[in-house]
Amino acid sequence: MKFRRSERLIDMTHYLLERPKELVSLTFFSERYESAKSSISEDLAIIKETFERQGIGTLQTIPGAAGGVKYISHMKEEAARGIIAELCQLIADPERLLPGGYLYLTDLIGNPQIVSKVGKLLASSFANKDIDVIMTVATKGIPIAHAAASYLNVPVVIVRRDSKVTEGSTVSINYVSGSSKRIQTMVLSKRSLNEGARVLIVDDFMKAGGTVNGMVNLLEEFNATLAGIAVLLESEEAEERLVDDYVSLVKLMDVDVKEKKIRVVEGNYFLQSKGDI
Amino acid sequence: MKFRRSERLIDMTHYLLERPKELVSLTFFSERYESAKSSISEDLAIIKETFERQGIGTLQTIPGAAGGVKYISHMKEEAARGIIAELCQLIADPERLLPGGYLYLTDLIGNPQIVSKVGKLLASSFANKDIDVIMTVATKGIPIAHAAASYLNVPVVIVRRDSKVTEGSTVSINYVSGSSKRIQTMVLSKRSLNEGARVLIVDDFMKAGGTVNGMVNLLEEFNATLAGIAVLLESEEAEERLVDDYVSLVKLMDVDVKEKKIRVVEGNYFLQSKGDI
Repeated sequence: MKFRRSERLIDMTHYLLERPKELVSLTFFSERYESAKSSISEDLAIIKETFERQGIGTLQTIPGAAGGVKYISHMKEEAARGIIAELCQLIADPERLLPGGYLYLTDLIGNPQIVSKVGKLLASSFANKDIDVIMTVATKGIPIAHAAASYLNVPVVIVRRDSKVTEGSTVSINYVSGSSKRIQTMVLSKRSLNEGARVLIVDDFMKAGGTVNGMVNLLEEFNATLAGIAVLLESEEAEERLVDDYVSLVKLMDVDVKEKKIRVVEGNYFLQSKGDI
Repeated sequence: MKFRRSERLIDMTHYLLERPKELVSLTFFSERYESAKSSISEDLAIIKETFERQGIGTLQTIPGAAGGVKYISHMKEEAARGIIAELCQLIADPERLLPGGYLYLTDLIGNPQIVSKVGKLLASSFANKDIDVIMTVATKGIPIAHAAASYLNVPVVIVRRDSKVTEGSTVSINYVSGSSKRIQTMVLSKRSLNEGARVLIVDDFMKAGGTVNGMVNLLEEFNATLAGIAVLLESEEAEERLVDDYVSLVKLMDVDVKEKKIRVVEGNYFLQSKGDI
């Protein structure tokens, strides 16, 4: 069954978008579409150009017999600024204020379009780093971690507060919560993380960084390596931050419960050198 | 900035795939690419044909001034059979056996490629139903629920075992766990679910159905409507099932701890009438 160029372009776009960072050989496409490799190469050149122009990402070409093409998801600065501005506006909504100055963010984290954008932004920040696994903590970090993982095409491991029978043997550590200074426990299934894995820690919110720091300590128990830390929202309030090298999209400056005002600004996303992809 | 047809096809494919079930007007595309609506219509016809041929889904055309086009994600039966066979094989791996006959599934639920396929399958089952919200329970249901939600383009609400200060006011119910007969509690943030919402319940595993049934009871507290139930894995073992109308991808028939054998078969996915989309 022969494919015309237009059909190949549509199907290849879908195929590549579903498999970020996966090497796909020209032979595979050539057989899939019963088309000459030279035609496939031309198709890929058009896709690469359009992906770059439209801020979808890029295609990396690996030459040689074992070579092929890889889709790398990447967001242009302009698009990233737009999304972060949108997030700031959404988070500053005074309706989010809860007793005690907490913010209700559950609707944002439940919205697949927003979560996907957040995941793409965080993945863009780490597009040219070697990441084997994303680690997050239950519950609210999970959707964001999975969204970033789908763009980086790596698995997610979930740290829990308590151990579950369906997790098998676990490693448990105690850590001090940064803001409340309470001792807490976190648990990770033993078989979920390999020795030497390079781990990107992702969470929804970071105040003093106690939870993130707990996850960093947990990495040591697994002889895994920290490759980066990324959060949707950081809080300026933190007196003493336990974590200093991280990427944040939005920064919570001040919550005025009486005046019902939430002040947020851009996080450090654009200050982080992301290099070229 | 003019776009050639090949560039339009690539960008439109990406644009539509990112927005399932969202109505996009021809005018929008016509302005985006500075192209005549007649050209855009031709582009969309090629995309629709290719999406259908390749099992990506379809495009629904809504005529008239307020009309446009909607991408509906849908999986062909052949592809669905392939994925369910793959899931059966993965789940039957005796390495998954845990003490007590429990199965370790955390790696599957942490794999974004597998989770995305599971989500697409479950979403395909409900492609022509009216769904406003997906509901799941923390923790393991979350990735699958979000994957299905991204194909149906609806928000996810997460039921928890305990209430959290960041959830605001909550509604809590007690329910009887189907297999252990213990009384348990589940909690949902009051503002997370609107009255009258049509809710698809998604979870990773269902035995007697106590947890799913608890979520159904919770819907009543919110005056919301049950639109469907979908699980990755159901267990045959259940003596008395509390839930009878559901979709499952895989069915766990028998776990032999001594012989280290896990027997699984296809779930009821293909027995459910899914209708035409």
